[in-house]
Amino acid sequence: MSRMSAVTCQISVSLDGYVAGPNQSMKDPIGEGGMRLHEWAFGAGSGEPTPDAAIVDELMRGVGAYVMGRKMFGGGDGPWDATWTGWWGDEPPYHAPVYVLTHHPREPLAMEGGTFHFVTDGIESALEQACAAAGDQDVAIAGGASAVRQYVAAGLLDELYLHVVPIVLGAGERLLEDVGDPRLEPVEVTASPAVTHVRYRVVRA
Amino acid sequence: MSRMSAVTCQISVSLDGYVAGPNQSMKDPIGEGGMRLHEWAFGAGSGEPTPDAAIVDELMRGVGAYVMGRKMFGGGDGPWDATWTGWWGDEPPYHAPVYVLTHHPREPLAMEGGTFHFVTDGIESALEQACAAAGDQDVAIAGGASAVRQYVAAGLLDELYLHVVPIVLGAGERLLEDVGDPRLEPVEVTASPAVTHVRYRVVRA
Repeated sequence: MSRMSAVTCQISVSLDGYVAGPNQSMKDPIGEGGMRLHEWAFGAGSGEPTPDAAIVDELMRGVGAYVMGRKMFGGGDGPWDATWTGWWGDEPPYHAPVYVLTHHPREPLAMEGGTFHFVTDGIESALEQACAAAGDQDVAIAGGASAVRQYVAAGLLDELYLHVVPIVLGAGERLLEDVGDPRLEPVEVTASPAVTHVRYRVVRA
Repeated sequence: MSRMSAVTCQISVSLDGYVAGPNQSMKDPIGEGGMRLHEWAFGAGSGEPTPDAAIVDELMRGVGAYVMGRKMFGGGDGPWDATWTGWWGDEPPYHAPVYVLTHHPREPLAMEGGTFHFVTDGIESALEQACAAAGDQDVAIAGGASAVRQYVAAGLLDELYLHVVPIVLGAGERLLEDVGDPRLEPVEVTASPAVTHVRYRVVRA
């Protein structure tokens, strides 16, 4: 696969390595306590973006396409209910095409910001399609954890941007499990009282 | 317990949360691959301390006493073999009194740098004795992981200084497991290509 795009991922992780709390369900997709992983990005309620939220905006600006796991898009595990259009309402925060990994075919879904495409022939195919769509912009693996793990394990990720949240969840879904032994280099660290952002370059073997 | 000393801990941890590799034994106390957690502190072989190693020296300078788990001191789990004087030879790197948590009594062991005391009546007693010895200097929990976990879970740690090493060990002994839900605040971050140092203040409930 030849690619011009960098393949990136940004994700919030607890100090004990979880990206979601325990007992995830359709009603509670990030699990018990999992919302604490994302509070740093919401700001203090003033409506003004925090410096931390600005980092995310900046990261998303360079993204030309997304790849997303089925669980993150939602709608259950089985064949598609065509009325399910994701968690985000009419205007998802993904302003570029999104390639959803799934075992069940579905027609493309045009949404405000970017069309969702459903890819049934594996993670490499999804990435290839996303790279073609992104041109010279980045492709971001949007999550969830399982999708990220698969791309790390396959050696297909170039950059992992962790937002390390100073909480201990104690249980839930881990990010870096069964991913082999990737070679990582911390290349940028941005600290705030709420969260520590560490950008890792993944060195290709 | 009234204390003037801050109770601190510095420890190297992999990106997936391990402080030792799998299959630890008397012959291999930090487990398979565990030595990779400490390479950042060794320097490049020039004998000159790296900036990262200087951080550790600075942290150790303010320490007036140490508390250490039995496993970290070594010598097995049972009653003491009096010929066992630790892993470090004649001059251990602990230049202050050391209080070793153990179920088996033993006379104090005078070593170059500081005497090792063996405490059989629990973690609070060991900390109290260490604080008395430290005066207005810090008490450091030297490790291993089990000792650190016990002090975090008991709410007795004031500061956790993590050296986050950009490796994925995949298995081994975790640091932040069964420690409850401590309230942590990142107060200082120092980045290098080899390791990310994050100092967390532990907020007392």
